[in-house]
Amino acid sequence: MTVELISVGTEILLGNIVNTNAAYLAEKLAMLGLSCYHQSVVGDNEERLEDAIRLALDRSDIVILGGGLGPTKDDLTKEVTAKVFGRELQEDAHTRERIQEYFDRLQRKNPITENNWKQAMVPEGAVVVDNHNGTAPGLILEGENGKTAILLPGPPNEMIPMFDRDIAPYLNRLQPEGIYSKMVKVCSVGESRAETMVKDLMEQQSNPTLAPYAKTGEVHFRVTAKAADEESADALMQPMLEELSRRFGKNIYTMDENVTLEEAVILLLKEKGMTLTTAESCTGGLLAGQLMNVPGASAVYEEGYITYSNAAKEKLLGVKHETLEQYGAVSYETASEMAVGAAKAAGADAALSVTGIAGPDGGTKDKPVGLVYVGCCVNGRVRTEEFHFTGNRRKNRDYAVVRALTLLREELL
Amino acid sequence: MTVELISVGTEILLGNIVNTNAAYLAEKLAMLGLSCYHQSVVGDNEERLEDAIRLALDRSDIVILGGGLGPTKDDLTKEVTAKVFGRELQEDAHTRERIQEYFDRLQRKNPITENNWKQAMVPEGAVVVDNHNGTAPGLILEGENGKTAILLPGPPNEMIPMFDRDIAPYLNRLQPEGIYSKMVKVCSVGESRAETMVKDLMEQQSNPTLAPYAKTGEVHFRVTAKAADEESADALMQPMLEELSRRFGKNIYTMDENVTLEEAVILLLKEKGMTLTTAESCTGGLLAGQLMNVPGASAVYEEGYITYSNAAKEKLLGVKHETLEQYGAVSYETASEMAVGAAKAAGADAALSVTGIAGPDGGTKDKPVGLVYVGCCVNGRVRTEEFHFTGNRRKNRDYAVVRALTLLREELL
Repeated sequence: MTVELISVGTEILLGNIVNTNAAYLAEKLAMLGLSCYHQSVVGDNEERLEDAIRLALDRSDIVILGGGLGPTKDDLTKEVTAKVFGRELQEDAHTRERIQEYFDRLQRKNPITENNWKQAMVPEGAVVVDNHNGTAPGLILEGENGKTAILLPGPPNEMIPMFDRDIAPYLNRLQPEGIYSKMVKVCSVGESRAETMVKDLMEQQSNPTLAPYAKTGEVHFRVTAKAADEESADALMQPMLEELSRRFGKNIYTMDENVTLEEAVILLLKEKGMTLTTAESCTGGLLAGQLMNVPGASAVYEEGYITYSNAAKEKLLGVKHETLEQYGAVSYETASEMAVGAAKAAGADAALSVTGIAGPDGGTKDKPVGLVYVGCCVNGRVRTEEFHFTGNRRKNRDYAVVRALTLLREELL
Repeated sequence: MTVELISVGTEILLGNIVNTNAAYLAEKLAMLGLSCYHQSVVGDNEERLEDAIRLALDRSDIVILGGGLGPTKDDLTKEVTAKVFGRELQEDAHTRERIQEYFDRLQRKNPITENNWKQAMVPEGAVVVDNHNGTAPGLILEGENGKTAILLPGPPNEMIPMFDRDIAPYLNRLQPEGIYSKMVKVCSVGESRAETMVKDLMEQQSNPTLAPYAKTGEVHFRVTAKAADEESADALMQPMLEELSRRFGKNIYTMDENVTLEEAVILLLKEKGMTLTTAESCTGGLLAGQLMNVPGASAVYEEGYITYSNAAKEKLLGVKHETLEQYGAVSYETASEMAVGAAKAAGADAALSVTGIAGPDGGTKDKPVGLVYVGCCVNGRVRTEEFHFTGNRRKNRDYAVVRALTLLREELL
């Protein structure tokens, strides 16, 4: 069965946003064993959108359209798809109710503007998929010719949960044989080395297959098996998973698709009954912000510090004035004292500190942009690492966060 | 003149990489005033690639192909494009020399493998564009029918410098008239209301045009004019920009494409010579992290606090024990005391505080998930706002950050 993706939005054609939705969906479709030979992007233009939909339905079995379901005049995806399928739009009472509820929850003082009700109009005979994170529902249109269109909202925080919860199972039910996969997530090992370590496994693969994905500071391996049912797939995957475990050992932080590195670290702290704090300079709250995105993180994290200035490092963390004078704010010594001081100030069992030069300015010959020190203090024992990142400000900060989490994980194990 | 993009690579179709090249090129083409109505992605497959090139040349004047120029058997872009243009491949002596030089510079111990010389083969009559960061040259094929194909290497570090140095000037020389645009960024106004406020302008638009883009907690309007030169375009856009200014007033935080809300807030603080601190509970560092992503933010921000626990709110911010007992951690009163206390503790002129229930757990009937209080203290004057967000944990935290920045901006003005 072939699927293709059409992303609708002039903002993508103008390069205002990067089409991360397409990458997300493409990866998920590959996991589901669906062949995707085309992706396209078309603007908020009726004629071109219609052409794109007709072309896609001509050459593929299923077309997934993303974006253009909102309340504005520009949003045409539903209208044009309905036209191609020869369906009228009619109000869906259930969706109208859900939109009302959504606005009630927001407790907006202003009345709902009229254009919002446009989102309650659906093509006749369409399967309506509730949007749990917004107002525009997803829609599935099954044509008489065996061709299907699936319409998803554009915002990733609406599209992703909807796809995972309702669309992926729908697509799986259409398949004769199932594709099952597991994700093995590795930290503390570089991309090239990780790939070299499994080169032989990749060369001899057939069922299951093994595919590496490089992520910021991590490498993920997807093991995929084709089988009649999940149990048979598990049996096929088991030897490969065991082999990966043997080769990467404790550097595998999870085999659960949905677990992130920060979740793995929080879980480890919970298991050990330990608390954590953070002291951040160049990452300025990003590390704590990522940790706090884990539901229930409050069980291990009570307080943290953002110490941009030298004075704040002294006042809040007790970094010695002489240390800052002698070695500078971006130094092995300062990072170490920040970690120890943070643990003490917060009364926490573990502390992470980050100090560095994220860029674009502030670099010198001795301390160039990208130089970052990460300190980790666990039960009074400190380990500090020096890193040289080569990205822009944002990328350097992202890498620093992952390295800090990795370092803490290593120290906890 | 219309241009379209074809990205060639199975790794994009499988979702292994995000197509950032397309976003980069799309933005540059828009800036050059070239209309781009289609982007597509096709795998390393001869037949489908040929179909894609023919379709693109049929509906656009210029097609830019990215990827598939490398030395491997999979790399077919040059071969298939040459076929479509009816050209033979022949060795380009200059390119062969450059490849030799490239390998000499790398000082590879191994001899150049035979397949590398494939990259010196170019379609007859093609303009060869030197690759200063790799081996595969760029190629421009001008057809007799006035249609042009531009072939660029896939790796961004080769494609981007080549495009900027040679392809952009080439495209610019082809243009009689240009497209110019400005972005008007609005906060403090919801998406639907913002659109309703400019409905008449959108209906009567021709040159310039007006397009709204909903962002998390913000609305952006792109005003686009077609004109012989930038000055004429500015003159065309001026009345529309003035009208938007009249309608949205101080809720417009910038008319600069590249300025973010956090940058606008930091700039405002710098102009007023004021300093800022933050005290975060449910956002847990995310607000500070976003502010600190602005280069030079350290000029206005010295330190900040992440106070998840009640004890931390008392200890670091001086929130009264009775306040927490009587009203709870997520309350108007606590948010207000957090803001005042943070300003005092940091010795800052302004402070933002965030306390709320991000979810998924922790909600009650009285205080449901999504309830967030944002406090803002400027020169001792406090304003606190209550919000009801309806997203998941991540979305609620993202919205809280934008609302906090918006509130501070309102208070500073």
